[in-house]
Amino acid sequence: MMSPTPHTARPRHLLDFQEWTPERLTALLDNADTMLQVLDRPVKKVPALQGQTICTAFFENSTRTRTSFELAARRMSADVFTFAAGSSSVSKGESLRDTVEVLTQYKVDAYVVRHHASGAAHLVARYTGKPVINAGDGRRAHPTQALLDAYTIRQEYGSLEGKKVTIIGDVRHSRVARSNAELLPKLGAQVTLCGPATLLPADLAALPGVTVTSDPREAVRGAHAVMALRLQQERMSGGYLSSLQEYADTYQVNEKLMGEAESGAIVLHPGPMNRDLEISTEAADGPRSRILRQVENGQAIRMSVLYHLLVGRE
Amino acid sequence: MMSPTPHTARPRHLLDFQEWTPERLTALLDNADTMLQVLDRPVKKVPALQGQTICTAFFENSTRTRTSFELAARRMSADVFTFAAGSSSVSKGESLRDTVEVLTQYKVDAYVVRHHASGAAHLVARYTGKPVINAGDGRRAHPTQALLDAYTIRQEYGSLEGKKVTIIGDVRHSRVARSNAELLPKLGAQVTLCGPATLLPADLAALPGVTVTSDPREAVRGAHAVMALRLQQERMSGGYLSSLQEYADTYQVNEKLMGEAESGAIVLHPGPMNRDLEISTEAADGPRSRILRQVENGQAIRMSVLYHLLVGRE
Amino acid sequence: MMSPTPHTARPRHLLDFQEWTPERLTALLDNADTMLQVLDRPVKKVPALQGQTICTAFFENSTRTRTSFELAARRMSADVFTFAAGSSSVSKGESLRDTVEVLTQYKVDAYVVRHHASGAAHLVARYTGKPVINAGDGRRAHPTQALLDAYTIRQEYGSLEGKKVTIIGDVRHSRVARSNAELLPKLGAQVTLCGPATLLPADLAALPGVTVTSDPREAVRGAHAVMALRLQQERMSGGYLSSLQEYADTYQVNEKLMGEAESGAIVLHPGPMNRDLEISTEAADGPRSRILRQVENGQAIRMSVLYHLLVGRE
Repeated sequence: MMSPTPHTARPRHLLDFQEWTPERLTALLDNADTMLQVLDRPVKKVPALQGQTICTAFFENSTRTRTSFELAARRMSADVFTFAAGSSSVSKGESLRDTVEVLTQYKVDAYVVRHHASGAAHLVARYTGKPVINAGDGRRAHPTQALLDAYTIRQEYGSLEGKKVTIIGDVRHSRVARSNAELLPKLGAQVTLCGPATLLPADLAALPGVTVTSDPREAVRGAHAVMALRLQQERMSGGYLSSLQEYADTYQVNEKLMGEAESGAIVLHPGPMNRDLEISTEAADGPRSRILRQVENGQAIRMSVLYHLLVGRE
Repeated sequence: MMSPTPHTARPRHLLDFQEWTPERLTALLDNADTMLQVLDRPVKKVPALQGQTICTAFFENSTRTRTSFELAARRMSADVFTFAAGSSSVSKGESLRDTVEVLTQYKVDAYVVRHHASGAAHLVARYTGKPVINAGDGRRAHPTQALLDAYTIRQEYGSLEGKKVTIIGDVRHSRVARSNAELLPKLGAQVTLCGPATLLPADLAALPGVTVTSDPREAVRGAHAVMALRLQQERMSGGYLSSLQEYADTYQVNEKLMGEAESGAIVLHPGPMNRDLEISTEAADGPRSRILRQVENGQAIRMSVLYHLLVGRE
Repeated sequence: MMSPTPHTARPRHLLDFQEWTPERLTALLDNADTMLQVLDRPVKKVPALQGQTICTAFFENSTRTRTSFELAARRMSADVFTFAAGSSSVSKGESLRDTVEVLTQYKVDAYVVRHHASGAAHLVARYTGKPVINAGDGRRAHPTQALLDAYTIRQEYGSLEGKKVTIIGDVRHSRVARSNAELLPKLGAQVTLCGPATLLPADLAALPGVTVTSDPREAVRGAHAVMALRLQQERMSGGYLSSLQEYADTYQVNEKLMGEAESGAIVLHPGPMNRDLEISTEAADGPRSRILRQVENGQAIRMSVLYHLLVGRE
């Protein structure tokens, strides 16, 4: 039913975008179109991964991301099992390596890994011979989120070429911002990262195609897409912010700030939202919002990634 | 394999019984007969919901009810995923509406909702276009429990017409009592609600076919079925009861109290039981008890409800 | 696809090895060979248990064992549902008997039971008419672990006949040690149990084919397989050990101690390991180690046990 682009030298894992060429990333997004069609059918299921077992290894809680991956895998007829660290040997002090080696003996065909430590998915990939998908590691990367963001923008404009994408909020602690800053320029977009100086690491300005600013109006000016990041309210205690109200007054994505953007500009948010903190309810629910579309696209993207990594290899 | 009664204007949801006519309720119970036959086969599985995804959204813990629904759905070949609020965005402060809108983007085909707030299932139904089954909302309703109670009584007597059903215990806090008081009179039965005055809201006496009394012997006199409600021991601290022993002495469903009922009267309990508190072990395990039968019927009823709401619609 | 040995009077349950003859145990191990072949295929799934429902009832946490059973069951195309006691009626004070009777009404086809109380699996077997597999009950038994240990040793030597198997560590609290002491002699092996006197119950010496000693060098001398048991660090508070360091100095399974064993002797551990406490990292990861092989074999053994108890009965 699916006719994927023929591939040579496909990356074995999706840890970040280092090994992924623009051509291959484009093929991933193209395949997601096919997957969206599957999701529109009355019977939303294809036999592509029949008899394969996917392990979602979540060392950090995330119902949304886990559910999205699990449904994606099951819609491709895979068996899925969740390895939740809370109730596992990990809480008995077992090392990540021992855990992965045990999971490998269960004959898992691919791993989806979420971990609080940056680089954990890379470690898992080193310990197992099977494909690993990074579902978020520390502040480092969350590549499927960036892919669904790119896909949502491309859906709107047909291409990312020459588009300005602005990401506003706690950039410092955000793997979403980091993965987008890595991915979007590869696909031809310009990325502007914006937030209070305390939450805006200067080193990101060194990335190709990335601009950094603390001025939200300048950041949003001429943007085709504006993404508000979730503000972890725990940040207050870290001394990063003086008050939530002050943050909202300056950096909230709302109709007023969107007035600076391109006329048809869209609003994105990785969820879950703190309404009326980093984003106004008006912007979240208004005609510019593609926030629910992002969730839908997330499933298509994850199906496409699983297909790419698992089907049609020698 | 199943030949359901042809339906017109079927209710879209099962939130309570307001939109359900006696004819349609009877069709639900009739279909449960077919489902019980499926459960008696060596291979207890039919393809009715193949390719459909059911979300059990449990914002309140209930292993029993959740398991019963999940097995019912899987025996009809649906994919099931559990959204457990404890480990989810809800605990990050996301609103019920945002949660439901996200779940909707996952292309869920139906929801089974348990929530501590009365009316929550109605809200979910408003936010999603898909069928919603109320698996218990606050003190308000637990319609599949009432249906399985009705089905169990009908199995015994062939019909509910003219039967007297007595429900004893903490009526005030019981969605089971409330749903039965709504359902059973629609099917021709008389309902008597009984408990200590502090646990017996007077307004229920206004319902058609419902009588309210604090006298257990009067309540049970001539009854065809007697249901003991689970006593939440937390109630003690609320000042509703002076002592558990005093409660048991007066309101426990036991052989002595059952002496007042019809000779073939049956004993019901929604489970889990506090043995020798609201029900004696003798009554729970004796020949009158249909308590385990209720559990079995619960699965058939839930299969029937899923079938009604999901199969054969335009 | 599988051609099991024809069986007469097969035991209904796997609670311990009392009802299992050496012939039948050997048949179990032989069938595991077939299952290992299934696990080596690209599509690791057979239809043997299609339409059957397995309940993994875990009243005590164990991600590893539960996962191994669940994958085994799903690879035979069974439906699996987990009854986790933590979130269940059991925490509302329901008795084990009531819980099992409810589960039985769900039309479960077999139970896998883990419980902190010795004898719990036997109780479950008494309350249900369906096959029960003991996945660990208190200190009493963990028969599938012993079977996978036996299978791993047999894989190495072709047979257990005349082999010396040494088990070192907290024998007192170990259901793994107890099950191996019951199983291995039935298959022709000699078992030596070794540990500090406080952790070594003398009564086990009365078992046929079992020797007990506190001297690790004597225990390992001439052994074909040496198993280190996990040391529960909680034991320190019970006054069983004066210090972990002292324990490690004397009883750690490491290269030096293995120098006493047969030249090709293998190292086993039921996992998860406390590296460099009861076992050295060198021994755990070295060429003698069969610890990861044990995990792989565990799945084949559990598939074989499910097949034995569920397929081809009248």
